[in-house]
Amino acid sequence: MFDTEDIDIQITRDVKVVDATLRDGGIVNSFYFPEGFASALYKANVAAGVDIMEFGYKVSRKMFDETKFGIWKFCDEQSIRSVVGENRTDVKISVMSDVGRVDLKSEVLQKEKSVIDIYRIAAYSRQAEEAAEMVSYCHDMGYFTTCNIMAVSRDDRQSLERALDIIARSPADVIYIVDSFGSLYPDDIMLLCDIYGEKAYKYGKKLGIHAHNNQQLAFANTIAAYAKGVEYLDATVCGMGRGAGNCYLESLIGYLRRPAYRLEPLLAFVREHMEPLRKQASWGYDVPYLLTGLYNVHPYAAIDFLKADRTDYENFLHEITNGEKK
Amino acid sequence: MFDTEDIDIQITRDVKVVDATLRDGGIVNSFYFPEGFASALYKANVAAGVDIMEFGYKVSRKMFDETKFGIWKFCDEQSIRSVVGENRTDVKISVMSDVGRVDLKSEVLQKEKSVIDIYRIAAYSRQAEEAAEMVSYCHDMGYFTTCNIMAVSRDDRQSLERALDIIARSPADVIYIVDSFGSLYPDDIMLLCDIYGEKAYKYGKKLGIHAHNNQQLAFANTIAAYAKGVEYLDATVCGMGRGAGNCYLESLIGYLRRPAYRLEPLLAFVREHMEPLRKQASWGYDVPYLLTGLYNVHPYAAIDFLKADRTDYENFLHEITNGEKK
Repeated sequence: MFDTEDIDIQITRDVKVVDATLRDGGIVNSFYFPEGFASALYKANVAAGVDIMEFGYKVSRKMFDETKFGIWKFCDEQSIRSVVGENRTDVKISVMSDVGRVDLKSEVLQKEKSVIDIYRIAAYSRQAEEAAEMVSYCHDMGYFTTCNIMAVSRDDRQSLERALDIIARSPADVIYIVDSFGSLYPDDIMLLCDIYGEKAYKYGKKLGIHAHNNQQLAFANTIAAYAKGVEYLDATVCGMGRGAGNCYLESLIGYLRRPAYRLEPLLAFVREHMEPLRKQASWGYDVPYLLTGLYNVHPYAAIDFLKADRTDYENFLHEITNGEKK
Repeated sequence: MFDTEDIDIQITRDVKVVDATLRDGGIVNSFYFPEGFASALYKANVAAGVDIMEFGYKVSRKMFDETKFGIWKFCDEQSIRSVVGENRTDVKISVMSDVGRVDLKSEVLQKEKSVIDIYRIAAYSRQAEEAAEMVSYCHDMGYFTTCNIMAVSRDDRQSLERALDIIARSPADVIYIVDSFGSLYPDDIMLLCDIYGEKAYKYGKKLGIHAHNNQQLAFANTIAAYAKGVEYLDATVCGMGRGAGNCYLESLIGYLRRPAYRLEPLLAFVREHMEPLRKQASWGYDVPYLLTGLYNVHPYAAIDFLKADRTDYENFLHEITNGEKK
């Protein structure tokens, strides 16, 4: 604030900015993005210096009806190639798979046949063994891998440490702190960075952070993690994502103030593509999301409340706390 | 996060929640609030356990045309009494005066004749002497006083420390960190807490925080200050305030989780009074406010940009950085 000393320190630290707009934002609109949206976002990310762009989920067509979702729910090789060609850019391409929602053995190509660079495996802590298996499979196929432990705010410390022990011994390159419910405060995030770091660093893993904006803390939590040495930082344009959404990519890029990143391409993308999209899809901070964040419950309750056009917040508070509050 | 240990610690610490909705929110709508709004807000604050309610500014009618502002720009004794009567509640009543915008000697009643409890004197650091005089005057008239040093993100350390030296020797009960431009990060706030504390605590002063939401950090910055021992925490319902607005009162009350505070009355107030108001007045995070926050310039530029229905963010970025960025 008083001088630029700390900027020099930042520049020497490694960081990877991950744009998850198509993936987490896709949850908002069932992955039905307008024609040309993915392509324009890819170009904006390339121009902005974003390190990794997540195109969506890779899930099984046997488990999800493909007439009910846009193409980024499935992330076929040809869908991604239709946007990136051979991807002769510095942007790495990732997809996410949830434990239990895909049989990777029938879906994952050998790395040399794919433009995908990174598989991110999402799992609850109780699914750590299965997650580690999926990570191993993708790793063996030649991919960079992450393991994203969801809804960590609901874990007790013992369950979390058990999961971390398993995942830290897997070949995952990065282990993610995921605040699915937008329930955590910067202090919690910093504590989690220590807990994760203790398990992860001795195996040479990096850490990542994926935050939600229920309490308008997604950006604050992301930069708190960054200050603790977390290197993989998830964000989405305009914070587009389930419920209250995510860390705003434009805030994060602005904050980092590194020559490698440029804000202007993202500002142009916001004007040209996000502002029209906002008229068709709804996400971002609202009172019911604040309440699910505060009381550490899944945002689905708030999504349903808003879909029903309810505004009886006091009753909702009572419902989600099972009558603990009146 | 893992247990409630830290909640017990919090409860033992002193804190004063200040609702500044009428005052900072009044900047958005020239203090023209709907009939009954102030009264309903007062009742909600009483029921919620809010410690201090700021009714507005006290400025000189000679300097501001009273046909162009609602009554909370002037905060006459009878206006406040029409809402609070003799204020036989636990809520303390404050008003704000800016250095140079009022001759307090013609405006301030002896405390025993007034329902106002607190005068908050707002000044830039270069106006510290004048601020200290105004504080002394209000103190001598029997009031609790604060001095709010505005736009601290633009001060160099020497100017700030000079101002703090002057204000710390004044009779001000509380010295406020004010991030007028929404430019500071939690780390900056924590550094400022140390700088302010070093000057203030030896004279028995308390510290306060007033944050703006340009980078969606108003709440994060407020709780960062709280963690550093800052006791006076400003917020507004739905974050209503100039430009990107302020720390959300409902987030803050929810966060504190103290028996003295109740969220439900604020939730009812949001539904009944803020949601209609949102259709008439505009505030809150938007891209131009992010940019003025990032580049530490006054939000007026962003307010004008939005009023002109402009969306050429890249040009705006260029303008506010005087061409440093292109």
